[in-house]
Amino acid sequence: MTQEPPTTPGRDARGLLRFQHDVRAQRVVFATDRAVAAVVEQVRDRGNDKNNDDGARRVLVTASGSSRGTAEAMAEALRTSAPGVDVVRWDGAAQHVPVDIADRARAVVRERGCDLVVAVGGGSVIGLAKAVAAQLPVRVVAVPTTFSGSEATDVWGQTVGDRKAVTADPAVLPAVVVYDAALTVGLPAAVAAASQLNALAHCVDALWGPRADPLSAALAEQGAGLLVRALRRKTKDDDGDGASELRLREDALLGAHLAGRAFASAGSGLHHKVCHVLGGTFGLPHADVHAVVLPHAVAFNAPAAPWAAARLRSVLGERPAVVLSSLASAAGVATSLAQLGLARDDVAAAAEAALPLIPPSNPRPVTREGLVRLLDAAWEGPSALREG
Amino acid sequence: MTQEPPTTPGRDARGLLRFQHDVRAQRVVFATDRAVAAVVEQVRDRGNDKNNDDGARRVLVTASGSSRGTAEAMAEALRTSAPGVDVVRWDGAAQHVPVDIADRARAVVRERGCDLVVAVGGGSVIGLAKAVAAQLPVRVVAVPTTFSGSEATDVWGQTVGDRKAVTADPAVLPAVVVYDAALTVGLPAAVAAASQLNALAHCVDALWGPRADPLSAALAEQGAGLLVRALRRKTKDDDGDGASELRLREDALLGAHLAGRAFASAGSGLHHKVCHVLGGTFGLPHADVHAVVLPHAVAFNAPAAPWAAARLRSVLGERPAVVLSSLASAAGVATSLAQLGLARDDVAAAAEAALPLIPPSNPRPVTREGLVRLLDAAWEGPSALREG
Repeated sequence: MTQEPPTTPGRDARGLLRFQHDVRAQRVVFATDRAVAAVVEQVRDRGNDKNNDDGARRVLVTASGSSRGTAEAMAEALRTSAPGVDVVRWDGAAQHVPVDIADRARAVVRERGCDLVVAVGGGSVIGLAKAVAAQLPVRVVAVPTTFSGSEATDVWGQTVGDRKAVTADPAVLPAVVVYDAALTVGLPAAVAAASQLNALAHCVDALWGPRADPLSAALAEQGAGLLVRALRRKTKDDDGDGASELRLREDALLGAHLAGRAFASAGSGLHHKVCHVLGGTFGLPHADVHAVVLPHAVAFNAPAAPWAAARLRSVLGERPAVVLSSLASAAGVATSLAQLGLARDDVAAAAEAALPLIPPSNPRPVTREGLVRLLDAAWEGPSALREG
Repeated sequence: MTQEPPTTPGRDARGLLRFQHDVRAQRVVFATDRAVAAVVEQVRDRGNDKNNDDGARRVLVTASGSSRGTAEAMAEALRTSAPGVDVVRWDGAAQHVPVDIADRARAVVRERGCDLVVAVGGGSVIGLAKAVAAQLPVRVVAVPTTFSGSEATDVWGQTVGDRKAVTADPAVLPAVVVYDAALTVGLPAAVAAASQLNALAHCVDALWGPRADPLSAALAEQGAGLLVRALRRKTKDDDGDGASELRLREDALLGAHLAGRAFASAGSGLHHKVCHVLGGTFGLPHADVHAVVLPHAVAFNAPAAPWAAARLRSVLGERPAVVLSSLASAAGVATSLAQLGLARDDVAAAAEAALPLIPPSNPRPVTREGLVRLLDAAWEGPSALREG
């Protein structure tokens, strides 16, 4: 960090610090290549921890799609190696946490008397576990297999009809996160890159979110550096045993973790509000929407946020919006809302829906016309990117 | 951060991440020029927080020496503006938390039925509040006036006879820290600099402490950057209203906070073990000992810890040990153990006492002879600094 001018996050008109930042308790475990053993250890620890009367007597292990094998292995290992702990297996997560699925998960937890939920998978299954923890006295052990960062935030949501209601609640923050980079290696390259760009979007929005401060900015900057390194896929060594590939995924997971913490603290900015509407109301796929919109959100805000722009240049290089767009293209990620299936005619309605959600603290004043231009450009793609 | 070789913190022999990092809950408030109002707000919040049945009905406000005026103002403001909250004033802190003083503070808390302790001052008074919280059900609001970083760690200690017993306990971590840079402006320059070098020592030791990992290293690196900026006293602007001086102190407080968190997570390394003996057994002043020993500890370990050395160079410049020594000299801080009053003959005994405390994970193997050489050089001062 360099000496900051008075308009930087968390400072008042005299340039003096004035902010409140809540650091949330969480155990972060990195256990590359050994998630199953690490989960068993954490569940056992929880059962033995005299400071935690929330215990771990009956554990729900839940997973989404491709993570079911890992979840089965964890359930089996818990049955074998964690005496006194009962294991319940139930899967059912779906994107955006539909309320009927959340209700079913809560019913399972209530009927079976679970006090711990182990959630293995992407943002959907971890989001489901958080939706359970929001309403029932369970703790969550999250085992993320993407870079959504949901495991590091206290934000949860569920979708009723076509509307996803999102709330922050410290009670839903997973007590433990077990990161195992080996679980992410199966993700196709373009899916992994979209997920990493989604994480990068957390870092970017954290620089100008409504509660941005120097602590969240520091997390965001460190996270962004790691994510960009992973996206650029530069390794010094090619060790032949897959370790260098794993280390890139570790960078991305560490970056996604820091990104989630920064974002949870700073709050949703322009970018996330726009994506929330595109994902929630228009049903576009979560990570891809973020990857598509991010360069345009950066191009829109950067000229009005010199401090944030300087941070982005230090991480991404000159012309950060263009770099973001190139990273997406190079990784084979979608680069236009058109590609994602948004009808051109829906741009105006999306802008209309997003407008009232944009935080008043956004560094650049946001008008309906400004949002339409931003979304029009995102609909068209990289060639329409307007910097400055 | 750049791509790390396999020997970096938190990685196994294949270079893969394997660590457990506990993030502790804490509210961090920066309120430059308005500590009194911020403390009233936090005490009121605590009383009103339905998630905190630890409440805030009776508050002990305690301070050391020059902070008593601030403590009086806080007590008065609480009496006026926090209806339903009783205020008890008691002072008595002394360096290294003598057990009889800790017992007296605990007696006051028990007899008066306090549920919250507001501690205003340096490491001694915050340490006293932590010693109370270790044994009684009180929460702590810390208002630090130095850069000790004690407010950001879960480490507490008390001194029985000439021995300070130090323990880590999550229960002693202050629930709230209120930082007000204006409270540090009264510190004489050399005292402030010694305290900032003490904070910098937390960052340095966090790079190779026994539980060092990429998360603690990231905190340490960010903290060190801020502290070095404050120590170099470079401001871009001279605004005439004192704001640039306050911003330097803010940098130092933010740096000290990150340093404390990094250090609490990574654990004591070589440097702190040596200083613990010099402070505890030989009674040398805390911050000054750290300032004196730090360059020698860095010179000793750096050649065996290339990753940490690279981080230190990126923050301090080439020859980090020499830079640390120059920063101390330039600020008028003591630069030799001789100056601090250690008898030359005590060097061998200090080395002997420190040897069994050095973590086996220290990057460079530590022998009795090695420690004597390190301490001899620290006794002599900068001219004896041995790099490599």
